[in-house]
Amino acid sequence: MPHTLDTAIQLMSVGENRFTGATHAGYANMVGPFGGTTSAVLLNAVLQHPQVLGEPISLTVNFAGALADGAFEIEATPVRTNRSTQHWSLQLTQGGVVAATASAVFAARRKTWSAGEAEPPQGMPAAKDLATVSMPGFPAWVQRYDMRFADGEQPGPFDGQEQAHSNSRLWVRDEPARPLDFAALAAICDCFFPRIFIRRRAPTPIGTVSLTIYFHADAELLAEQAERHVLGRARALNYRHGYYDQSAEVWSDGGQLLASTHQIVYFRE
Amino acid sequence: MPHTLDTAIQLMSVGENRFTGATHAGYANMVGPFGGTTSAVLLNAVLQHPQVLGEPISLTVNFAGALADGAFEIEATPVRTNRSTQHWSLQLTQGGVVAATASAVFAARRKTWSAGEAEPPQGMPAAKDLATVSMPGFPAWVQRYDMRFADGEQPGPFDGQEQAHSNSRLWVRDEPARPLDFAALAAICDCFFPRIFIRRRAPTPIGTVSLTIYFHADAELLAEQAERHVLGRARALNYRHGYYDQSAEVWSDGGQLLASTHQIVYFRE
Repeated sequence: MPHTLDTAIQLMSVGENRFTGATHAGYANMVGPFGGTTSAVLLNAVLQHPQVLGEPISLTVNFAGALADGAFEIEATPVRTNRSTQHWSLQLTQGGVVAATASAVFAARRKTWSAGEAEPPQGMPAAKDLATVSMPGFPAWVQRYDMRFADGEQPGPFDGQEQAHSNSRLWVRDEPARPLDFAALAAICDCFFPRIFIRRRAPTPIGTVSLTIYFHADAELLAEQAERHVLGRARALNYRHGYYDQSAEVWSDGGQLLASTHQIVYFRE
Repeated sequence: MPHTLDTAIQLMSVGENRFTGATHAGYANMVGPFGGTTSAVLLNAVLQHPQVLGEPISLTVNFAGALADGAFEIEATPVRTNRSTQHWSLQLTQGGVVAATASAVFAARRKTWSAGEAEPPQGMPAAKDLATVSMPGFPAWVQRYDMRFADGEQPGPFDGQEQAHSNSRLWVRDEPARPLDFAALAAICDCFFPRIFIRRRAPTPIGTVSLTIYFHADAELLAEQAERHVLGRARALNYRHGYYDQSAEVWSDGGQLLASTHQIVYFRE
């Protein structure tokens, strides 16, 4: 049996640069599918494209409208291929209507001087020493992850008592466990609860408008991480007149930054 | 006389969704033009488009290849217009070759609950109490800005003595002064020196691959800021095998976050 994530991001080639896929009930969100799987399936169109060069460096997904449950089409066009980098433009449509646009940069990496500058979260107990948070009543996609939050950093209680910040840290992996690859990492980049829920301790209608992922990990580093939990940290910078941003980092359990991700989110009071 | 920035981002409509413009020697970079003006001119294509709705919320620019000095064409297509948001896809070409792709989200904002979460840089002297840094030998675009760094946070000396971090803070405005608007803010988002120059205290060949800007300010807040210096802060998270990311914030002198910006950058040792 394939993993549910692999089923959810499965694509069929239907012509030059064109693929079809379908939303998966296992990753349903409050309205339409989980944005993480939408990002992962867009990335997958490039990963599966016969002309792909190298590995992903960046991905930006613009959520233009709610996806309906069911089939969709992806067009993935290599707009420019250089010696070591390749730029892609993507569109996800349903019945000819654009539901998402995306761009991706891929590259053949070379080994160079490397260094961390951000520090991985400190003082976080090991994943095995924290309980998996059970979140009954949450959308289906939440159950596709094993999430283990730092003490006191679980989402909620939703008592409307506004907090000064929305920082939280968690260990997370696919549930059931699945070896980490670029598509799974892209999906994990959207698994952080909307910061406005944490900040205001209250759910409110929201929708990610644009999401960007920078892939710091190469395939070798992802293979080392295998099926083990990765360490995530998320925060917001600013909420203003209907939009806020949130940023997150995904770290290996060996202290390497695997991805950094940023998004801007619409909210209604 | 128009401001040099306005000349540099000037566009002529040449058909439905199509504009022509040209690079400007005043914003020349080491190779091709300053990425900030490329971002600003792409944004300007949407700002000038007859179908534009509202104000910019996000902009992502993918630098696909070096721009040659001279004319270029921009195609700006409104791919989806909703009740309050509008999604744009853009391409900048020279002689039919794609040099940059971009996407933008615009929106009609409503007044809502708003809050800061990130804090503006603390302990920074006022702009008037810091000296303008003179940077002879730097590319032309650097002279288009009045930059006043915190003590000890100027770029350099380039003695190759690696630092533990690349954080820096500066006051910056267009030179000569010009009222802040969305295009000028977009350009300022790329005025932070490559973090790898700061971290390694050595210049090295680099190129921004993808740049994202989130606009927290609306037109009203930009108008309040007028021509005064804005406060910038930049840092990097990670450098690995040919690519690193950097993030920056642009604050009003009244302590409001105007924009947050992220980019991933190619580097060669």
